[in-house]
Amino acid sequence: MTDHHDIFAGRESQVRSYCRSFPHVLTTGLGTLVRDTEGEEYIDFLAGAGSLNYGHNDPDMKAALIEYISGNGITQGLDLHTVAKGNFLTAFEELILEPRGMDYRVQFTGPTGTNAVEAALKLARKVTGRSNVIAFTNAFHGGSAGSLAATGNRHHRMGGQGLHSVTRMPYEGYFGNGVDTSEHLAQMLADQSSGVDTPAAIILETLQGEGGLNVASSEWLQRIASIAAEHGALLIIDDIQAGCGRTGTFFSFEDMGVQPDLVVLSKSVSGFGIPMSLLLIRPELDQWLPGEHNGTFRGNGHAFITAEVALRKFWSTAVFEETVRQRAAQLHDGLTEISAMIPGSRVKGRGIMQGLDVLDENVSTAVRQTCIANGLLIEAAGPRDEVIKIMAPLTTDEATLDRGLEILRAAVVEHLEGSRTRELVG
Amino acid sequence: MTDHHDIFAGRESQVRSYCRSFPHVLTTGLGTLVRDTEGEEYIDFLAGAGSLNYGHNDPDMKAALIEYISGNGITQGLDLHTVAKGNFLTAFEELILEPRGMDYRVQFTGPTGTNAVEAALKLARKVTGRSNVIAFTNAFHGGSAGSLAATGNRHHRMGGQGLHSVTRMPYEGYFGNGVDTSEHLAQMLADQSSGVDTPAAIILETLQGEGGLNVASSEWLQRIASIAAEHGALLIIDDIQAGCGRTGTFFSFEDMGVQPDLVVLSKSVSGFGIPMSLLLIRPELDQWLPGEHNGTFRGNGHAFITAEVALRKFWSTAVFEETVRQRAAQLHDGLTEISAMIPGSRVKGRGIMQGLDVLDENVSTAVRQTCIANGLLIEAAGPRDEVIKIMAPLTTDEATLDRGLEILRAAVVEHLEGSRTRELVG
Amino acid sequence: MTDHHDIFAGRESQVRSYCRSFPHVLTTGLGTLVRDTEGEEYIDFLAGAGSLNYGHNDPDMKAALIEYISGNGITQGLDLHTVAKGNFLTAFEELILEPRGMDYRVQFTGPTGTNAVEAALKLARKVTGRSNVIAFTNAFHGGSAGSLAATGNRHHRMGGQGLHSVTRMPYEGYFGNGVDTSEHLAQMLADQSSGVDTPAAIILETLQGEGGLNVASSEWLQRIASIAAEHGALLIIDDIQAGCGRTGTFFSFEDMGVQPDLVVLSKSVSGFGIPMSLLLIRPELDQWLPGEHNGTFRGNGHAFITAEVALRKFWSTAVFEETVRQRAAQLHDGLTEISAMIPGSRVKGRGIMQGLDVLDENVSTAVRQTCIANGLLIEAAGPRDEVIKIMAPLTTDEATLDRGLEILRAAVVEHLEGSRTRELVG
Amino acid sequence: MTDHHDIFAGRESQVRSYCRSFPHVLTTGLGTLVRDTEGEEYIDFLAGAGSLNYGHNDPDMKAALIEYISGNGITQGLDLHTVAKGNFLTAFEELILEPRGMDYRVQFTGPTGTNAVEAALKLARKVTGRSNVIAFTNAFHGGSAGSLAATGNRHHRMGGQGLHSVTRMPYEGYFGNGVDTSEHLAQMLADQSSGVDTPAAIILETLQGEGGLNVASSEWLQRIASIAAEHGALLIIDDIQAGCGRTGTFFSFEDMGVQPDLVVLSKSVSGFGIPMSLLLIRPELDQWLPGEHNGTFRGNGHAFITAEVALRKFWSTAVFEETVRQRAAQLHDGLTEISAMIPGSRVKGRGIMQGLDVLDENVSTAVRQTCIANGLLIEAAGPRDEVIKIMAPLTTDEATLDRGLEILRAAVVEHLEGSRTRELVG
Repeated sequence: MTDHHDIFAGRESQVRSYCRSFPHVLTTGLGTLVRDTEGEEYIDFLAGAGSLNYGHNDPDMKAALIEYISGNGITQGLDLHTVAKGNFLTAFEELILEPRGMDYRVQFTGPTGTNAVEAALKLARKVTGRSNVIAFTNAFHGGSAGSLAATGNRHHRMGGQGLHSVTRMPYEGYFGNGVDTSEHLAQMLADQSSGVDTPAAIILETLQGEGGLNVASSEWLQRIASIAAEHGALLIIDDIQAGCGRTGTFFSFEDMGVQPDLVVLSKSVSGFGIPMSLLLIRPELDQWLPGEHNGTFRGNGHAFITAEVALRKFWSTAVFEETVRQRAAQLHDGLTEISAMIPGSRVKGRGIMQGLDVLDENVSTAVRQTCIANGLLIEAAGPRDEVIKIMAPLTTDEATLDRGLEILRAAVVEHLEGSRTRELVG
Repeated sequence: MTDHHDIFAGRESQVRSYCRSFPHVLTTGLGTLVRDTEGEEYIDFLAGAGSLNYGHNDPDMKAALIEYISGNGITQGLDLHTVAKGNFLTAFEELILEPRGMDYRVQFTGPTGTNAVEAALKLARKVTGRSNVIAFTNAFHGGSAGSLAATGNRHHRMGGQGLHSVTRMPYEGYFGNGVDTSEHLAQMLADQSSGVDTPAAIILETLQGEGGLNVASSEWLQRIASIAAEHGALLIIDDIQAGCGRTGTFFSFEDMGVQPDLVVLSKSVSGFGIPMSLLLIRPELDQWLPGEHNGTFRGNGHAFITAEVALRKFWSTAVFEETVRQRAAQLHDGLTEISAMIPGSRVKGRGIMQGLDVLDENVSTAVRQTCIANGLLIEAAGPRDEVIKIMAPLTTDEATLDRGLEILRAAVVEHLEGSRTRELVG
Repeated sequence: MTDHHDIFAGRESQVRSYCRSFPHVLTTGLGTLVRDTEGEEYIDFLAGAGSLNYGHNDPDMKAALIEYISGNGITQGLDLHTVAKGNFLTAFEELILEPRGMDYRVQFTGPTGTNAVEAALKLARKVTGRSNVIAFTNAFHGGSAGSLAATGNRHHRMGGQGLHSVTRMPYEGYFGNGVDTSEHLAQMLADQSSGVDTPAAIILETLQGEGGLNVASSEWLQRIASIAAEHGALLIIDDIQAGCGRTGTFFSFEDMGVQPDLVVLSKSVSGFGIPMSLLLIRPELDQWLPGEHNGTFRGNGHAFITAEVALRKFWSTAVFEETVRQRAAQLHDGLTEISAMIPGSRVKGRGIMQGLDVLDENVSTAVRQTCIANGLLIEAAGPRDEVIKIMAPLTTDEATLDRGLEILRAAVVEHLEGSRTRELVG
Repeated sequence: MTDHHDIFAGRESQVRSYCRSFPHVLTTGLGTLVRDTEGEEYIDFLAGAGSLNYGHNDPDMKAALIEYISGNGITQGLDLHTVAKGNFLTAFEELILEPRGMDYRVQFTGPTGTNAVEAALKLARKVTGRSNVIAFTNAFHGGSAGSLAATGNRHHRMGGQGLHSVTRMPYEGYFGNGVDTSEHLAQMLADQSSGVDTPAAIILETLQGEGGLNVASSEWLQRIASIAAEHGALLIIDDIQAGCGRTGTFFSFEDMGVQPDLVVLSKSVSGFGIPMSLLLIRPELDQWLPGEHNGTFRGNGHAFITAEVALRKFWSTAVFEETVRQRAAQLHDGLTEISAMIPGSRVKGRGIMQGLDVLDENVSTAVRQTCIANGLLIEAAGPRDEVIKIMAPLTTDEATLDRGLEILRAAVVEHLEGSRTRELVG
């Protein structure tokens, strides 16, 4: 097997990112483990940035996919009817929508998250005839120049080209616990002279993945929903990263007492890491004309197959949800213990989307480098990458989760001892 | 096998489009043929809107893909190094870039065409520090609100929200053969008071797929390239639909005497209908910072596997190109013959991306409906869908192409006779 | 003398506003008094919306102006040198800039406030190479589509067309006394992922005239200035309404411990109600190219003449400032007394730019109608016109100010008694 | 009398422009002549850039203005009713609208041209609910960031910040005489996929003042008007520079067979060089809400007085129009004669708004410098200032016009001889 490093260095764009801190060349993955060309095995707490909630190469999805390909199933069907799509829709209706008493139309957009966010924003503007959109600090909704306007990260925004018609408001807790930022929004929308135009939509994540694992409470979310309703604005929940079971329920907002007008799903909706995105639309808002929004890869047959298996395997009963909740508790305990070693640090997030805010990006980087050296793939979040973020597959077993947490704990200890030594020596 | 029509009608968004004129439910595809739940077989001259240049389920790609999946190959790798990606890059360098004397860095963007166009526009604006972009009449570059600004179709644009910093210029031939529209652009850019700002980039398709199969000549394209160079603007060729062999060469512009600064590939680059997109960047323009533009699904392992097979199978020798050229000639002859029956109609396009401008969308619709009834899947292009468009897989054999053309010919005859009868009776 | 009402009703646009509540036809004005075609006299607490700080037809300005016109002085000089402009600049340097230790270049823009604001924003964007601008809730900076982006009033904004590159932040006190809104701005600008781009400028009024007489403190203003400096953003003070002595000093910010980068003056700068605007520019920021921003009426000879007289008459000694302060105190006492009669009401503003927030626009409207019926021209401010606003000429004498306050007091009493009667009857 | 040069150089912004080529300090003006502090007299063919159509200090306007000021007439009345405004409206109705069979509502905007253009664009967008506006190459409609979007000159546009929702089309003759640019517009608006959104308005000058004295024909203008009507777009004629008699009729379009929806007047509407602007609105389009667009100086009493005198003195009979036509013919003959001396040059424009396109900005600059040295104030127009532009007051007598033309002729001769000498020597 050739060493591919020359081709990556010489031919791939400078834009590449994850591979700079993890320069190994991966070959295979199974469940929570990945393997490289050197034969080394790594615990994967990155999980395709949330697109591998059921781990690598789930055997049931894999079998169904191989069967489908073997039988010359339609791979790419645009928006034509296919059996694979029909089966997925049926499963989605039976296992997701109906049990939750939800009624949404399903739009298959281009298979990236930003494609689906674009569709949501465009539909909200079409339906309301308004252009302004409320988005929140530290939000991430994608990188196309339209969705980009709704994204917070300055690094991605490059000076704001195209930041048109988005008003930025503080997310819950942005100004500390004492300040109810939903009241800021309420006041500014009620005030005819605030400078904030009545919006087409309010878009938010209930748990900000890239923004640093900031968590919205049910109370705050309900207040935002009622503000949206009061002003005739659509509530769009971007569940790209926090959805598909990541927080312990299929949708991140299930137990929070709100009914969004539009819901964006992507990342783990195919279950297998295959590109797929959905926009869920309250039926009365499904005012698209045929073909008004499109995208070549909106009918990905392979994704329909694995997505259906994922739904039937994990969402037919309550077992999986219960397991995720146990693992989330285990994760929380583990992180809390580690946090106690770092003064000022704190545990953030919920479900299996938690992390450790170590306050200092240098600490975060050093600890993660040690983790990688010791066989744990792990990433960071937050404006300065100051939050060490755990996105283990939801199917990670108790022992593997413990093993990963132990590597993290040891890396923190090593860093702290190194710091102490450096202080003593320095 | 259940009839899925209820689930599509009741649950899928109104935005669905192709399935309205072709309501059958597809099951399998092989080469140029697809089959539905009724057991009917159709010749597919739609080919996934250009994403199935090598037909459905090519056996070599299929075998490699099943092998990869069976071996638990990495499905979704973000921008981490994987063997699959390294192999693809190596093949792309050896078989595409080096033989053509081209030197480009490869950026893996989110796997839809619009993702890659967004990256191109963003990079052009970053590198030049300018915001205006020149795009042409009848262009299609995607539907996200940034790319959308560069897209012509009013149906998709919904009143121009976000049409910021794009100046629209007439494509070659837009005002008839006597008018050299490149001189319009030259004059307006040279004029300090024309109202057109010096652009970051000029973006174009050499052959406008959605716009009606309008063809740019080498002379015009070279003139545009020299205008871009003169004003320090990047030349971006959007080869999403016309690339990957569609016109008879791998890139649509290979024999046209220009060296674009950025090239956008998508649709058929994976070879199998799996979502994948590339942005090719002249090395000195690869000024991205790490992670400055991203997208979860930018490392699609399945696509790397089939894409490599596609390159090795079809682009190692000149045989495939030669075959495509023969088939293109066959197509041109067939269409020319049919065109002779319809007064005023004309054949447009090049390669296996040709069509018949029948001038009237009602004729276009009627003829295509008859085609579908007789077993031929076929689409339309142009501002009013007035061009019947043939996008057969490049691997379509001579007999199948003839069979498809015969169905089209018969449909035209039927339409003409019907018209005549209606005239006599009416 | 004809009754002109027919011509106004039949020929003037529906956009007319003040004349709807004050339908009388004015003939002459002198000092604080105006007279109509019926011979009725009114105390003018509107003062040309702040453009008549020295009252109507000041005799010294009037004499100088008549002399200038009689002598065929240049009326309209574009940006050519004229003696009138030279004399004004000399007086402005000697009487305004030098005594205050200020060093600014003077740009004569088109003579409306919005023209000068446009120049300020354009220059800030040019100098910094950035596009975003921070503006505050309830701000008013003009109605052209560029300045409009920086203006809060929704009524004027018509859905935000052109609200590009302005980020709206809460003014001091917007969320109540406990919340330091400057810290919101500081936090959002420091946060790389807040969604607020580093701005070219922060623009503000120290006392929001249209926004409801909201007052910035020195502490808050200094904090804003230091935030601007920290991020390399220009501090623009829009002193269109609060400048030219309105708050008791020539500039509203003189005693507040800040040195703005750009200062916008208009309204009363000509002293006589003649259109004139200035942009003051810190010398090192005067990076305009010749003619880069223009406007036909930027050299208004008549305005230069009266403006120079205004400076020499009122700003050569400290007497005028002292008188204004006394009158401001008198006004404050009078309003405080009236406020005591209305539960919940409060006095807002400073200098001779104070008002009574009566909380309810109906009360505000009813009271002002009674005032007009009793000979007092008076206007409202605030998002819902809930603040009765007193903008008497600064030259108003003690007795006339008392007379006006008495009319206001009586109108309030009448309203309160009417309310009580309505309650008893109803 | 002091030399003011120090104060201008030290204190006025670098943005100043005209005074760089004409550094003398003006004192007085009468009719077509101005005088400086050295006692030198200059013929003024600049005429306040078109704001002094009736010359400097017309004795009748002057007398009326002095009488009004002496009698304490209202100087600044916001949009309150005043006798002065009523009288102006009556005169405007009787002398301008009624004789021409025109019915427009009159909006008094802020008194600069750009203020009125802003009002026109805002109203067009409000009435149609659309955002795009068609503007033409080489157009000048003002410098505020909204109007700026409709302005062509790159020097003023600074990279296009705020060029939102304007589509640029070629003016008549832009691509030479053989190309009918109105058909370009017609084709692009009819084409659903052209990339040009259906506009709210088409805005144009019938004679482009800053753009180089380009003239629209009646045929072209009628075609544009019919295109606007067909698409439900408003036709806005910006008559700021070409109106008020400049072309020989009060409106520049009077004899051209079109009825614009909105007409913008400014510059010479006050007649005396005093700032004043009007927007004329077809009654059914007067859909403003009260106060929806405003501006402090929209009720300029002095301007109403002189404007009324101007109308009564010059527009009560046909004598003035006839005289202007004679003078225009004289000007055309004079320029034609001079043009014959310069190979390739040509006479452009119409009315007393004509010029000589000398093709080369260096020639233009050299000739104008000689003119100034010899007592003639004269300016340039066109993208590169290549057109020497004559904007003499309309009241200029035959002898003075001849005198000015002779100075120009001599300057051209001197330049040509100098060139010949330089060639011989060089």
